[in-house]
Amino acid sequence: MKIHLIGLGKMGSNLALNLKDHGHEVIGYDPSEQVRKTISETGIVVKNSIDELLKNTNKDRTIVWLLVPNQYVDDVINQVKPYLKPNDIIVDGGNSNFNLSLKRYESLLLEQIDFVDVGTSGGTFGARNGACLMIGGTKENFEYLEKVYKDISVPNGYGYMGSPASGHFTKMVHNGIEYGMMQAIGEGFDLLENSNFKNLDYKKIAQVWNNGSIIESALIGYIESAFDKDSHLDEIEGRIDDSGEGMWMIEEALKAKVSLPVITQSLFSRYKSKDEDKFGEKVVAAMRKEFGGHAVYKKK
Amino acid sequence: MKIHLIGLGKMGSNLALNLKDHGHEVIGYDPSEQVRKTISETGIVVKNSIDELLKNTNKDRTIVWLLVPNQYVDDVINQVKPYLKPNDIIVDGGNSNFNLSLKRYESLLLEQIDFVDVGTSGGTFGARNGACLMIGGTKENFEYLEKVYKDISVPNGYGYMGSPASGHFTKMVHNGIEYGMMQAIGEGFDLLENSNFKNLDYKKIAQVWNNGSIIESALIGYIESAFDKDSHLDEIEGRIDDSGEGMWMIEEALKAKVSLPVITQSLFSRYKSKDEDKFGEKVVAAMRKEFGGHAVYKKK
Repeated sequence: MKIHLIGLGKMGSNLALNLKDHGHEVIGYDPSEQVRKTISETGIVVKNSIDELLKNTNKDRTIVWLLVPNQYVDDVINQVKPYLKPNDIIVDGGNSNFNLSLKRYESLLLEQIDFVDVGTSGGTFGARNGACLMIGGTKENFEYLEKVYKDISVPNGYGYMGSPASGHFTKMVHNGIEYGMMQAIGEGFDLLENSNFKNLDYKKIAQVWNNGSIIESALIGYIESAFDKDSHLDEIEGRIDDSGEGMWMIEEALKAKVSLPVITQSLFSRYKSKDEDKFGEKVVAAMRKEFGGHAVYKKK
Repeated sequence: MKIHLIGLGKMGSNLALNLKDHGHEVIGYDPSEQVRKTISETGIVVKNSIDELLKNTNKDRTIVWLLVPNQYVDDVINQVKPYLKPNDIIVDGGNSNFNLSLKRYESLLLEQIDFVDVGTSGGTFGARNGACLMIGGTKENFEYLEKVYKDISVPNGYGYMGSPASGHFTKMVHNGIEYGMMQAIGEGFDLLENSNFKNLDYKKIAQVWNNGSIIESALIGYIESAFDKDSHLDEIEGRIDDSGEGMWMIEEALKAKVSLPVITQSLFSRYKSKDEDKFGEKVVAAMRKEFGGHAVYKKK
């Protein structure tokens, strides 16, 4: 199938190569000239503008697959739309907020353009070698593109989640679960590190845990790999970014009045990991001094 | 190697068959007559008392492997000790508190009996087909028994964790991580269940997540299997037991003054899941009524 892929970053470029390996015709575009140059050297056909990418589409259904950061999706859709005809499909394979995906589906429907939301997991390695795809949109569009999904994912690693936006919704929930699992693993190693058992071999522990235990998981595999490169993680700081999906999940929990204590705490632990000012802790320390004369630590 | 296995419950009986498959001579004992009868029918040699089990041990190093509940370990060790000679080894393969394992190691050392702590993961399926073993004790004893560990675990699924009790310590941390991961997964499905997306297929979602995603894990596999049997879990209650290791982990965190918010919350979520009285919630509801006249729900 002919895929017009917009966004050739870490995920997009790997997905492009994966699609090409499976006999699909990939034509790519990225706003960065440097990225376009790098990717065109891998053998992917890269165009220099959206106009070049889409001006020659013929009577066939045009497929435009987006792998762009959430904040650029509307802008890219607006640039793409003039080139599309009824029944053409925009596939958003990025980490978009599912509420926006639902709005995009509805507003594109008014112009008879189909919109499909595909939550993509598995990281860059998965994008290249077999991804995990959570797919929303109409059943008809799922079936129309199923061969593509099957080709680029691991066996059984794609599925129709249901109505429009459900792909990005289940991907968001996946990411929230990921936050909680990761924080639990982090806490476990924190106790190992602060225990009376010295000289524990974290790489070996992760390796044993990842072979036959109940916590065997892709994530334990990733931390095994990290300890293999840096046995005590001495080279990095304990500051954790978040890319929005955890936050969206808590927002949805508040709307639905569902209690997600562990996932919420996982997100808040990430915020706290970056909080150098620790104003809340200062307030607590100051109160202890006021009512009990407890020592405070003077700023150096 | 000849293994005297005490405790032929779900874990012990499967481990006995696993050992036997690998050419080890297993002689078993369990205090329950019914269990002894059932297991002897599988071809495992079962003795009717600890005396019968151990009275004919010869000059070779005797290996006594325990798979008994934590609260019976001291009792069984006391019954076994009179039959043991210097350099014989007691292997505790159960879920014992590592602090007690350290004490047992030290007190048995005074009588020249070796003690090895083996944290065993992988559930009953693992015990039968390939377990995950976290092994503490002396390096010499680890090497003496390594062939046995290798035989009964999955490839790379066993390892020497370090000094005595470190096997049970790392198993405890493993279980704490497991609590956190499980709670995160539970919360994720809770949001799916309470979302505007109706008719989500939980088994399919778990299946997709378990093929190529970042949260791919043994636990997602187990919930996929559970949804396969009962697609909406209508047949069970949302009450979760705990078997102590999560609690021990929090106790250790308090001693070491390490913050484990997610794992602690996971344990507390289990307690709350069994709390029918909800007295704390009554107190909060009563206060809201007192100061704000907010409605309370009268008990039916």
